[in-house]
Amino acid sequence: MILGNLGNTCDRFCKGYKNNPTSDEMLAIAKEKIPYIEGIELVGTWDIRPDNAGEMKKKLHDYGFACASIIPDTFTDPEFAKGSLTSISAQTRKKALDYLRQMCEIAQLVDCQILNLWLGQDGYDYLLTADYNKEREWLKESTQKLATEFPALKFALEYKPKEPRNFSYHSRMADTILAAKETGCKNVGITIDTGHSFVAGENVAEAVVLAKRAGNLLFHMHFNDNHGSWDDDMIVGSVHSVVYIELLFWLKKTGYTGWLSMDQYPYREDGAGAIAESILWVHKYEEIVEEYYKEIEALICANDAIETSRFLRKLF
Amino acid sequence: MILGNLGNTCDRFCKGYKNNPTSDEMLAIAKEKIPYIEGIELVGTWDIRPDNAGEMKKKLHDYGFACASIIPDTFTDPEFAKGSLTSISAQTRKKALDYLRQMCEIAQLVDCQILNLWLGQDGYDYLLTADYNKEREWLKESTQKLATEFPALKFALEYKPKEPRNFSYHSRMADTILAAKETGCKNVGITIDTGHSFVAGENVAEAVVLAKRAGNLLFHMHFNDNHGSWDDDMIVGSVHSVVYIELLFWLKKTGYTGWLSMDQYPYREDGAGAIAESILWVHKYEEIVEEYYKEIEALICANDAIETSRFLRKLF
Amino acid sequence: MILGNLGNTCDRFCKGYKNNPTSDEMLAIAKEKIPYIEGIELVGTWDIRPDNAGEMKKKLHDYGFACASIIPDTFTDPEFAKGSLTSISAQTRKKALDYLRQMCEIAQLVDCQILNLWLGQDGYDYLLTADYNKEREWLKESTQKLATEFPALKFALEYKPKEPRNFSYHSRMADTILAAKETGCKNVGITIDTGHSFVAGENVAEAVVLAKRAGNLLFHMHFNDNHGSWDDDMIVGSVHSVVYIELLFWLKKTGYTGWLSMDQYPYREDGAGAIAESILWVHKYEEIVEEYYKEIEALICANDAIETSRFLRKLF
Amino acid sequence: MILGNLGNTCDRFCKGYKNNPTSDEMLAIAKEKIPYIEGIELVGTWDIRPDNAGEMKKKLHDYGFACASIIPDTFTDPEFAKGSLTSISAQTRKKALDYLRQMCEIAQLVDCQILNLWLGQDGYDYLLTADYNKEREWLKESTQKLATEFPALKFALEYKPKEPRNFSYHSRMADTILAAKETGCKNVGITIDTGHSFVAGENVAEAVVLAKRAGNLLFHMHFNDNHGSWDDDMIVGSVHSVVYIELLFWLKKTGYTGWLSMDQYPYREDGAGAIAESILWVHKYEEIVEEYYKEIEALICANDAIETSRFLRKLF
Repeated sequence: MILGNLGNTCDRFCKGYKNNPTSDEMLAIAKEKIPYIEGIELVGTWDIRPDNAGEMKKKLHDYGFACASIIPDTFTDPEFAKGSLTSISAQTRKKALDYLRQMCEIAQLVDCQILNLWLGQDGYDYLLTADYNKEREWLKESTQKLATEFPALKFALEYKPKEPRNFSYHSRMADTILAAKETGCKNVGITIDTGHSFVAGENVAEAVVLAKRAGNLLFHMHFNDNHGSWDDDMIVGSVHSVVYIELLFWLKKTGYTGWLSMDQYPYREDGAGAIAESILWVHKYEEIVEEYYKEIEALICANDAIETSRFLRKLF
Repeated sequence: MILGNLGNTCDRFCKGYKNNPTSDEMLAIAKEKIPYIEGIELVGTWDIRPDNAGEMKKKLHDYGFACASIIPDTFTDPEFAKGSLTSISAQTRKKALDYLRQMCEIAQLVDCQILNLWLGQDGYDYLLTADYNKEREWLKESTQKLATEFPALKFALEYKPKEPRNFSYHSRMADTILAAKETGCKNVGITIDTGHSFVAGENVAEAVVLAKRAGNLLFHMHFNDNHGSWDDDMIVGSVHSVVYIELLFWLKKTGYTGWLSMDQYPYREDGAGAIAESILWVHKYEEIVEEYYKEIEALICANDAIETSRFLRKLF
Repeated sequence: MILGNLGNTCDRFCKGYKNNPTSDEMLAIAKEKIPYIEGIELVGTWDIRPDNAGEMKKKLHDYGFACASIIPDTFTDPEFAKGSLTSISAQTRKKALDYLRQMCEIAQLVDCQILNLWLGQDGYDYLLTADYNKEREWLKESTQKLATEFPALKFALEYKPKEPRNFSYHSRMADTILAAKETGCKNVGITIDTGHSFVAGENVAEAVVLAKRAGNLLFHMHFNDNHGSWDDDMIVGSVHSVVYIELLFWLKKTGYTGWLSMDQYPYREDGAGAIAESILWVHKYEEIVEEYYKEIEALICANDAIETSRFLRKLF
Repeated sequence: MILGNLGNTCDRFCKGYKNNPTSDEMLAIAKEKIPYIEGIELVGTWDIRPDNAGEMKKKLHDYGFACASIIPDTFTDPEFAKGSLTSISAQTRKKALDYLRQMCEIAQLVDCQILNLWLGQDGYDYLLTADYNKEREWLKESTQKLATEFPALKFALEYKPKEPRNFSYHSRMADTILAAKETGCKNVGITIDTGHSFVAGENVAEAVVLAKRAGNLLFHMHFNDNHGSWDDDMIVGSVHSVVYIELLFWLKKTGYTGWLSMDQYPYREDGAGAIAESILWVHKYEEIVEEYYKEIEALICANDAIETSRFLRKLF
């Protein structure tokens, strides 16, 4: 799970729906109140910085948690408001790249293998205000640099069609595969956030297959749910059901062995309770896939919606 | 169920995905192959006309089916392409009204109480091409005339945000309530088609509550499912689950006693099989609501997403 | 214009894209840098409170601004996170109502006639967690109380389909008309925010007609633009064009005489510049409507998309 | 333009909004009534078949039209209802491939260089009913075969997110680039249909840049407009304006030299009039781009929404 999901939640209207526990307090909550946690994703700067990396490593070790990923924070600094790696200011691009390098070093220090790059500010808002080609070129070059300088790390590009920018450069599975492949670096791949995929109009299971076909490019998974039109960051299973079964089936079928991590925004809910629910839902769906794997495999070959419906009915 | 769902399916590309059974053959299929059918909805002109109304009444009786509704066909005649009751041609409006009167007479003849008015061609496509006020006035007047002339019938306006027109006049629950209330006739109410409601961005259970608050205006229900962005007319439960539980809960809580009818387009599936699946899903959801009614009632008062999630998990 | 649009902008990721001018500084900017400003909308608590109402009144007067509306802030206080007037806590509902009463008193004090009620937290997030009927009843009762206690004020309910809640109780024109009419108070009407209307899937000009038919219920207008799927709060005209022409035509045709106010979030733009642009666009569209009123009136009767297209082409 | 746009229009409700002119009659209309036509796109089977190819070639020549593309019809034959090249039936896949080969031969015969492959039936409807990997592999193999067997032709894959299937395999620019590149054939590229792109949630100008970066993969362009949520196939410019300016700018900037073709469904409009309007709009936008090219180039580097807005205002 992402540690910060237990913490402060705000939106553009309310600056704090809840009090903000410290990273330490959140770790304790994760240990005590949430089942099945094996790894923690840390947000750069918030949870982990050069000054506390060693200490954080020890704490994770003491709790028995792996550091599943580090998520560099390029999205809260107003200097990156119009882009981090794709800013039109060379100085801002350099600042972003240097910050990401620092995060890579920290990752190595805490034995974390995945940099989860959600470049939320890299995109654009208005038509006729951005040179898409030049900005994508800058994005490619910087990603390439990082991946080349830190060959032992995996760079998982997390896509999302919009928010905070009206259009993101990494917006869907397929364009993010193109962005990853442009770098020519094998350690650049993709993170699926299920909610981002729903909003993108993708079928998330098919996105898994696209990543597989592109050369095992699925590096990481974030789970949550939404009503379909926006990244509502809700408890898994609160809206959708069948898509998760299909997703977990295809993760298994394509041999995905990475993390299944939770990424939510429980603005108005108890954080630990909400994340625990998501985990228990994913567990349930995994059990279904485990138990009926052969049957599902037959269904996807049969191409008969009525048979599939009969199968699904018996799960209730 | 709607009889025609067993029949021919076409779209704007393919003029016939299947062969077209006759109305008689479809009745036989409904009887033999589909469980729990108590009533049949007949599409005007296709299934029932002045010339075959008596005969159709007898057939329904022989099969033990009620005539759940008549759905006048104002959507296949190219004369109504730019509107039936809202055409700018007075002659076309009159033709539409006269056709609807004929359907009302047939309804009375076959002891059918509901005219399901899906006025699919009444709307507009392009901006700056329609006088919304005048056309809505025509719509009101004609609906009023019908409802006044046939006080024993219930006129259930079926809303849908778009298709075949880019904007429909009856587009969502709330605007259709306004349209119904404008007539001042108590026998004008609403049909919910679950798929239309999903596409409209409504929460369908809340639509039920709106109709209740407006004075028991929910007259009829059509069930199907879709992926959220279009009226895909799929088997119930193939995408959504929780919304149906909530919907059936609120139908019960608001005292809805009308039909639960199926409206699908099984383009590429066996029609009888697809409709049977939908019915079995609705049954399953009804059983859940029956069994857990008190528990759900407590949940909607508790306002706690985590408790609701726990409840839902135990249903799987 | 809404004064706060010149000020601080944040979203759920970045807590401040810009520095926050004071209300006083923003007034000065509005006067000096933005054309055609005749009235200012003040956000309650932020800009105006019991302690500064008299002083604010004087300032507005000195600048020659009317107070176009007061927008009570029920959206930033975490106590209202799960609803203000529709909270399940009677104490919270009372707090919200008392706050709104205070804002009404202030409105009278500063000769402001419109309370713009955007009840952003009144809605719900998860299925099966809210009693829609009970909560709507609370909403009706409190709105009724306010409208009855302050008969000289106009209460303009601003609708928006979602955000910050996943579903809002005032979500589209038609349901908000129903909510207004339920109160039985003639001083309860509607605010259209063009962007909210776009996201709602409405044709905004048709929404104007609905409000007209319901009894002149359009009380107030907020302008902005977006890409269609979210409330991007952009400069008017940056995405859409024709819809604004149609909107201004119907505002004129239905005799709307209220304010045309600007509501944007220029996160990454110069606030004064962005709002000035919107105003200049609305002006341009108004001029077009003024010049071609008769021609447009003929077009909406002609029902011919080709003629309309020819007309639009000549505007470029 | 696509010849068939002048002909019969139907949807899933109405089997014919208009009478159906013959291909010959449509050619005459295109010549006489529509400005700027230099090339015609022919739909396979409808307009051109082995038995009339020679004759059609002569007619086009006599009218002075080039054959801009051939659009094989894999979407009206019910045998392809569950996929043409991706059907689970080997026999159906073979039939589809053989049909496409026939169309390639005809293309060569009429000196047409582009096969516009809109594989509308290749996709899926229901979750858990398709083996996405296997079906995409079949799609790749067949496309590869065609492209290898007919190296002088260009195969332009036209993407669309849905309809007639709920999910298409060629759904957006980026995934279709991946599909094209999988073949390893340089004569496989992409067709943009502007309306499909709008529905896909893409910014169409950015899609042009993606195709450029992938190696000049934009082979063909179809123009139309819609309201954003569905492929309404409307007159260009009737909803959007700015996107077309940006699109034409980027077509020029990326050196696109292919056709600008019209693809509409004027269900209720005069076909020739509607297509003529679209062409005149595209012309107007082209002129704007021609006149202001340098200024627009500066704007996309300036990254300032206010400057862009000022520029756009002066175009009205």
